[in-house]
Amino acid sequence: MSDSHSEIKSFIEENKDRFLNELFDLLRIPSVSADSKFKTNVEEAAEFVKEKLIAAGADHAEICPTAGHPIVYGEKNIDPSLPTVLVYGHYDVQPADPYELWNSPPFEPVIKDGKIYARGASDDKGQMYMHIKALESMNSFGDIPCNLKFMIEGEEEIGSENLGVFVKENVEKLKADIVLISDTGIISNDAPSICTGLRGLSYVEVEVTGPNRDLHSGMYGGAVGNPINILCDMIASLHDENKQITIPGFYDNVEELSQEQRYELNKAPFDLEDYKNELDLGDVAGEKGYTTLERIGIRPTLDVNGIWGGYTGEGAKTVLPSKAYAKISMRLVPNQTSEEITQLFTKHFESIAPASVKVKVTPHHGGEGVVVPTDSIGYKAASKAFEDAWGKSPIPTRDGGSIPIVAMFQKILGLDSILLGFGLDEDAIHSPNESYGIENYVKGIETITRFHHRFAELNK
Amino acid sequence: MSDSHSEIKSFIEENKDRFLNELFDLLRIPSVSADSKFKTNVEEAAEFVKEKLIAAGADHAEICPTAGHPIVYGEKNIDPSLPTVLVYGHYDVQPADPYELWNSPPFEPVIKDGKIYARGASDDKGQMYMHIKALESMNSFGDIPCNLKFMIEGEEEIGSENLGVFVKENVEKLKADIVLISDTGIISNDAPSICTGLRGLSYVEVEVTGPNRDLHSGMYGGAVGNPINILCDMIASLHDENKQITIPGFYDNVEELSQEQRYELNKAPFDLEDYKNELDLGDVAGEKGYTTLERIGIRPTLDVNGIWGGYTGEGAKTVLPSKAYAKISMRLVPNQTSEEITQLFTKHFESIAPASVKVKVTPHHGGEGVVVPTDSIGYKAASKAFEDAWGKSPIPTRDGGSIPIVAMFQKILGLDSILLGFGLDEDAIHSPNESYGIENYVKGIETITRFHHRFAELNK
Repeated sequence: MSDSHSEIKSFIEENKDRFLNELFDLLRIPSVSADSKFKTNVEEAAEFVKEKLIAAGADHAEICPTAGHPIVYGEKNIDPSLPTVLVYGHYDVQPADPYELWNSPPFEPVIKDGKIYARGASDDKGQMYMHIKALESMNSFGDIPCNLKFMIEGEEEIGSENLGVFVKENVEKLKADIVLISDTGIISNDAPSICTGLRGLSYVEVEVTGPNRDLHSGMYGGAVGNPINILCDMIASLHDENKQITIPGFYDNVEELSQEQRYELNKAPFDLEDYKNELDLGDVAGEKGYTTLERIGIRPTLDVNGIWGGYTGEGAKTVLPSKAYAKISMRLVPNQTSEEITQLFTKHFESIAPASVKVKVTPHHGGEGVVVPTDSIGYKAASKAFEDAWGKSPIPTRDGGSIPIVAMFQKILGLDSILLGFGLDEDAIHSPNESYGIENYVKGIETITRFHHRFAELNK
Repeated sequence: MSDSHSEIKSFIEENKDRFLNELFDLLRIPSVSADSKFKTNVEEAAEFVKEKLIAAGADHAEICPTAGHPIVYGEKNIDPSLPTVLVYGHYDVQPADPYELWNSPPFEPVIKDGKIYARGASDDKGQMYMHIKALESMNSFGDIPCNLKFMIEGEEEIGSENLGVFVKENVEKLKADIVLISDTGIISNDAPSICTGLRGLSYVEVEVTGPNRDLHSGMYGGAVGNPINILCDMIASLHDENKQITIPGFYDNVEELSQEQRYELNKAPFDLEDYKNELDLGDVAGEKGYTTLERIGIRPTLDVNGIWGGYTGEGAKTVLPSKAYAKISMRLVPNQTSEEITQLFTKHFESIAPASVKVKVTPHHGGEGVVVPTDSIGYKAASKAFEDAWGKSPIPTRDGGSIPIVAMFQKILGLDSILLGFGLDEDAIHSPNESYGIENYVKGIETITRFHHRFAELNK
């Protein structure tokens, strides 16, 4: 098989500006899956992805409706005897609020200091679109070393609620040798890395109800349980003084790493002072007995992602509110299941509610953690692809984030996933001023083309 | 001096509908002092009060500008040898949100089951306006037994920030023998009562800042202190297991009542089961060792009136926010000063902040508690006025609310205040569906006219 690496590389360089402009068109579409008022924009983004797949050389592409937002599916078939790579990505984005903290409008991409600033620039439009441009680049030289399938969804940021159904119903169609996903990060452009582990997720919303109406805090304060104070008590009690989670059974199935595994993990370049300075933190905080890299990579967590109740407007209102609310998520590690943890949380949270309030727990969505074997053909191909494009062998890492569908692909399709991501911590995904490095975008496209070549070779 | 009690009583009955319609016109003005977008409505309400004072027979009335919302001042001088009563009230109201919980629009008053439903119906437009109608009623018979002064402000719901300055600058103008205020309640229409004690108030807003930007809770959760979790920890730590407040020095100056005083206080008719049922509570909650009446009347409290942070929109967002906020108020009892408690809170709250966050405490407003002597001429006049109009001798009570200016009148003008209020707990002041009983409005007007007569008599 021919391997026109250098031609493909120069082709990417020559078309860089066009590749960026196309991504900008996609970033201008506010495809926020969590908020129903953006529904038509989500559909618009799906249509955009479909058209670009065909323009890039796919044999065909289609929009597959689901109970929620549609999935875009495309194929490029070369030869049944060649291995098949199933590319997964998502075209939906996180909500952009708080808007006031953005330096430029979230859906009007701008370039500053070599970075693209926009919601979704890194997560995941920028990283997903690299695969479409990789297809185009290889296709322009008739040099595609394996069969390609694309499954780009629109519900990743809300828990991929309908992807599982689609996958179950299309097992044959999705037959492949490996899943390739670019939705994670590298340590730095000087220290490329591959994510070999992800945390699972259990996300719930809680509602605490005290009196049947808002009350005057003077006439009732001190005698009637205040749902906000009580919600704070309940949330505070979910961690002990060592910042361990107090939910009974929470740690029962947690994967315990060997000293050697922990040693390997902590070899990744990391400077605590830089980390604190970059975030303007007086100190880090987390579970006693673990390093920052371990707290993020191998330990489960419980974070309040949102809280609200009572009067939050201008000035002062002396109200004892009827209700208080919180959105709480738990990051899970391998062997913890989302369903089990959600049940344990619900049971415990209801059990600690005092008689003066009623509690309601509503599960939002969840997903399982995953570990990627570093001795697999897929991982080796990814490692060599980095060496080809970055001139460095990548460091295996454990990320704290969650891509629930990775475990689902393993379960339903029996396929491992390779997390070939190119984002950086400084990309500030899910935050105001999300960005993605132009170098990462361009080198990422090249790395992806190299992955397909290496993967085809190693499968010979 | 003539005493045309029965004529005045029938005059009030005959003019009841007009008296109600005039109040409705006032209730239609959304004079929310806490929210700057209602500024012109607040001015409109002041103008309304001024005009009605003149129409009711005041010698003159004027609108006195302040650094904030204006104060309406009016006078009716009869004879320098007669005692003078200074009537205080306020024409501003609490914010009406949450609007969605109102059964009818808050600023479109309606009558249902003998009650007026509107924001401010009871607190304090309804109760304040009774004094203007009492003036008109007495004046229509040329039967005003004492000199009257009216001081109606527009900043009570935001802490009367500029009233103190006005009073200091007008000590001569405000010379009087007693201050008369209708901004409190009675136990029930079958058990009239007079408030002889009020709690003070310290109101602060706190801001907890963690990382300098919102973060992805997967990539940072477990390693970076979450400002919401930490705010919850800090708030939870402000009470111990007996629901006593843990701020060092908080109870140092708290007035301790004798067993006999507590016994008297608990004689007020109160049914705990009714109380729980009316509020749909599984149980009450408060400081160990005290009854519900004591918790409200004689003990200080700490309540969170509002809390917010992170993502509070539709769906799920896995954010570790940069900031979390809360509005916290403390009700104070006699001998605790607002300034002292605000300082103690600030010092303590800053001291318990972990190194992973920065804390900012902003005082909103405060006021001192007060106790009204039951052996004074003013209290006796009020007691007899109730006997005249309600046929029952009123029970002395201690309310949980705060009217900071009562202590201020004592300090600057050397005047005691009589809290001749006619509201009921069910009025739901500061809550959606605030109401005020028509019977309370009408009987209140009569009671006020009786107070002036009894006060003049007792001063002879």
